[in-house]
Amino acid sequence: MPLVRIDLRKGKDAAFRQEIGRIVYDALISVGVPEKDRFQLISEHEADGFLFDADYLGIHRTNDLVIIQITWNEGRTSAQKQALYKAIADGLRTALGLRREDIFINLVEVKKENWSFGNGIAQYAS
Amino acid sequence: MPLVRIDLRKGKDAAFRQEIGRIVYDALISVGVPEKDRFQLISEHEADGFLFDADYLGIHRTNDLVIIQITWNEGRTSAQKQALYKAIADGLRTALGLRREDIFINLVEVKKENWSFGNGIAQYAS
Amino acid sequence: MPLVRIDLRKGKDAAFRQEIGRIVYDALISVGVPEKDRFQLISEHEADGFLFDADYLGIHRTNDLVIIQITWNEGRTSAQKQALYKAIADGLRTALGLRREDIFINLVEVKKENWSFGNGIAQYAS
Repeated sequence: MPLVRIDLRKGKDAAFRQEIGRIVYDALISVGVPEKDRFQLISEHEADGFLFDADYLGIHRTNDLVIIQITWNEGRTSAQKQALYKAIADGLRTALGLRREDIFINLVEVKKENWSFGNGIAQYAS
Repeated sequence: MPLVRIDLRKGKDAAFRQEIGRIVYDALISVGVPEKDRFQLISEHEADGFLFDADYLGIHRTNDLVIIQITWNEGRTSAQKQALYKAIADGLRTALGLRREDIFINLVEVKKENWSFGNGIAQYAS
Repeated sequence: MPLVRIDLRKGKDAAFRQEIGRIVYDALISVGVPEKDRFQLISEHEADGFLFDADYLGIHRTNDLVIIQITWNEGRTSAQKQALYKAIADGLRTALGLRREDIFINLVEVKKENWSFGNGIAQYAS
């Protein structure tokens, strides 16, 4: 169910980008998302299409910035969300050497009935 | 009002992609979206930027997977959403031969006042 | 915090696109978004990936259409949103000569705790 959009600057190789996807997936599993529930779109941008402030909130960002937008179901607690942010940042730091400052995450929450995983059916609707 | 993002693997020709757009539009009209209310962005991805589980929920997906994310107004019933999923999957199956298993849909709901269709005005705000 | 996705037809030069980003940022600041809070993704599309109705609601749109989707915190009033739409349309008109009819804007609202600006922390969570 999480639909994940990952945006970053052009220049990393395919293996690096796929590893970002894997780590975000693992982090989602670690906070209770079902196994195999993986749908991720990774887009690369030239500098002129990837604009960010290098200092907002006193966090120093570089061109390695990764912007991760996750659409998933409402109902998670603030603690679960914070666990997710930490798991993603720690995972990307450990596996790929990315700076934690360079991990930007946004969550969009929707109702359970707002998904069709195939076959034209709302699998999660009650 | 629906703002529709359609993502798929690179390899289909332009006519095929435009037909996806037309069918999603027709399906939206069939559940009550106003005629002509069409705003769609279609993006193609290489394999390494389009990651999905080929079996989640026991639904077998192929590289023909189409991921459709629709932002529209809140207030639709679950039945209307389910009618939309069915109309999209049936339409893509009939017109393009896509497998129903390969149609992934997500809805994001917003308030009526959250749109400006031009001129810097919130046309739907009451 | 606002995460801004800007989509337009291919053909404008980089300076033009960056100016769109700057003006959207300035408009956000003018309605109360904090200074330096800038995260923007600008994507160009071929004609076959950028589909819109040229007349919906009687507003005449051209291939210069700019589609702006802004994810930000809930809690803004309808008046604030309308001020934002006006500021963006006026700014793009004045600085770039874009027609106001060609500015499409959509807002997606999320909770404060739905952001991590870096370091794996939810900076806005209370």
